[in-house]
Amino acid sequence: MTAPSDRRVSVPEPALKAFCRALLEQVGVPPSDAELVADNLVVADLRGVESHGVVRLPIYIERILAGGTDPRPRISVMRRTRTTAVLDGGNGLGHLVGVRAMDLALEMAADGDCAFVAVRNSNHFGAAAYYTEMAAARDMVGLAFTIGAINHMAPWGGVDPILGNNPFSIAFPTGGAFPIVLDMACSNAARGKIIVAAKDGTPIPPDWATGADGHPTTDPVEALKGLVLPIGGAKGYALTLTVGLLSTMLSGGAFGSEMSHMYEEPGTAQNVGHLFGVLPVAAFEDPEHYRARMAKAIADIKGVRRAEGVETIYLPGEREHLALLRNRANGIPVNRAVVEELRMLGARHGVTLDATADAVSA
Amino acid sequence: MTAPSDRRVSVPEPALKAFCRALLEQVGVPPSDAELVADNLVVADLRGVESHGVVRLPIYIERILAGGTDPRPRISVMRRTRTTAVLDGGNGLGHLVGVRAMDLALEMAADGDCAFVAVRNSNHFGAAAYYTEMAAARDMVGLAFTIGAINHMAPWGGVDPILGNNPFSIAFPTGGAFPIVLDMACSNAARGKIIVAAKDGTPIPPDWATGADGHPTTDPVEALKGLVLPIGGAKGYALTLTVGLLSTMLSGGAFGSEMSHMYEEPGTAQNVGHLFGVLPVAAFEDPEHYRARMAKAIADIKGVRRAEGVETIYLPGEREHLALLRNRANGIPVNRAVVEELRMLGARHGVTLDATADAVSA
Repeated sequence: MTAPSDRRVSVPEPALKAFCRALLEQVGVPPSDAELVADNLVVADLRGVESHGVVRLPIYIERILAGGTDPRPRISVMRRTRTTAVLDGGNGLGHLVGVRAMDLALEMAADGDCAFVAVRNSNHFGAAAYYTEMAAARDMVGLAFTIGAINHMAPWGGVDPILGNNPFSIAFPTGGAFPIVLDMACSNAARGKIIVAAKDGTPIPPDWATGADGHPTTDPVEALKGLVLPIGGAKGYALTLTVGLLSTMLSGGAFGSEMSHMYEEPGTAQNVGHLFGVLPVAAFEDPEHYRARMAKAIADIKGVRRAEGVETIYLPGEREHLALLRNRANGIPVNRAVVEELRMLGARHGVTLDATADAVSA
Repeated sequence: MTAPSDRRVSVPEPALKAFCRALLEQVGVPPSDAELVADNLVVADLRGVESHGVVRLPIYIERILAGGTDPRPRISVMRRTRTTAVLDGGNGLGHLVGVRAMDLALEMAADGDCAFVAVRNSNHFGAAAYYTEMAAARDMVGLAFTIGAINHMAPWGGVDPILGNNPFSIAFPTGGAFPIVLDMACSNAARGKIIVAAKDGTPIPPDWATGADGHPTTDPVEALKGLVLPIGGAKGYALTLTVGLLSTMLSGGAFGSEMSHMYEEPGTAQNVGHLFGVLPVAAFEDPEHYRARMAKAIADIKGVRRAEGVETIYLPGEREHLALLRNRANGIPVNRAVVEELRMLGARHGVTLDATADAVSA
């Protein structure tokens, strides 16, 4: 994890959350919804997933002000069977819509069914793990897929950005201190990480992205004008296409040429699509037996011999869990440039990021 | 696709299938089951997925003869809700068990539900696409996950092979000539491709595998003694772990240290686990609208500008569809060493690969 450094400001969780909530309320988001979205963003920062936390708040606010996202969406179930549903997000913030959709899936699965909810008319929903962890906390395997809100990946062999770098998450309850949580996009790096590198002014590895000229680049600013590169070559292309189709073809969400640019077209409703699914453990397996087997699996993974220089074998989601414990206790290390941007944004809306004044670490 | 060359023998589909069926019957597989397994294997070869076709028949036969796989399994539903089930494969051939499980999922989803079937006590099930294409043919999105039947991948940072290179497939009906089918393992290359390269005597790319010494190698024979490398580094580790847990934790299938070696321990029942899922398109979306949107999505993908030297942008599953059409018409190009191995195997069981004698292409 990135330790607080002179590029980071340590912000206490309550202060950061209160700021997000107040700012969202100032642009018209109802208090309970603002609380939910603020929690979603701050949890990402707590977990060390800076790319999907408060760094995105300015664009969310900008989109609301430009009319591209509705701060008071009408979210409605358009179609439903016993175990499937299609939710129209009413062009609300994706974080809100995502929670409503996962809540619906959890409700449908309460009697031991699997359940899937497809979503349309949503927006960028932040970190996918937030939703799958909701399922894991209810002893269900959770699945979440979304189409990216920017096209910046090409089909394998192509050069036009017609595909999102589509993220997905799958989480497993473990019975231990934290769930096992896969949360990945289909490129070698999420575009959000390139945004963070650009803010930090640090170079990126050469297999993360091409620049505007189509050639690989280590300059994050140049990379933001180009395309991100998929993991495993053609496999990553197939995977991002699959996640995109799962997120849009069942719901009527925008795909390919229908997708606008989250940052460059802030006034345009994006019709982002998602797909959420849950598999209740108890429907398949005795929960005690499941937890015992999961503990054994975890012991197997963590117990392997380590390569030279490696101190710990981590499970997916473990670093994020450890970061959350650390940042909840010590404050969240936020990029200084992000803090400045948030302060200026707050000033325009009469919201102060008070607590950070005391919390500057360097 | 690999064109028939002097390393390939062209075998007509009916001859190859009849040979597989007869050989399976000779080792005790009932005729209707043998027909099903033969179809599964030959479809993989028809689709150009040599790594999961008849190249595997010798080990399947060896395992049956050694008592590691039951040619006449008792397959039974152990647990069931309206939309979920756990199937015990009775240690039967994975191809047979997989079809039974996907059939059950399709049956449970017939009234517009999503459905998932977890499987234990199965064996290596060949190409995952076979099962998801069954769903796509019924206008459902199909999902199939399996744990690999050999541990040859390490957790990220580790050096012990405690993880399979776990494959999964997701297929979408399209309304067009073929479904879109993702079918991938979590390494840069499937181990089966290394087996084929070893048979061919051709070198492999350096990011496919490490050798016995833990260092990357381009020698396929050396690579078979080492570990395969995941796509996207830590992402591929997280992905293969996730696919493995999906395949085993809901069903009681073997995981990690519980997993034996398909090739080296032919007499040991493997308790391979799978997970199959289906999402009926009509539960979510008007099927006509779905097909129209899918056609538009496909046009978007195929219509991008191409990188220099690229003639066609392929959809996942398209190359395999084209190979199937070509090989069904012209005969299946089978590695000459594989044909020789099959002939020798057939000779031991009184089964002749007749038609190939006329079909040798070089």
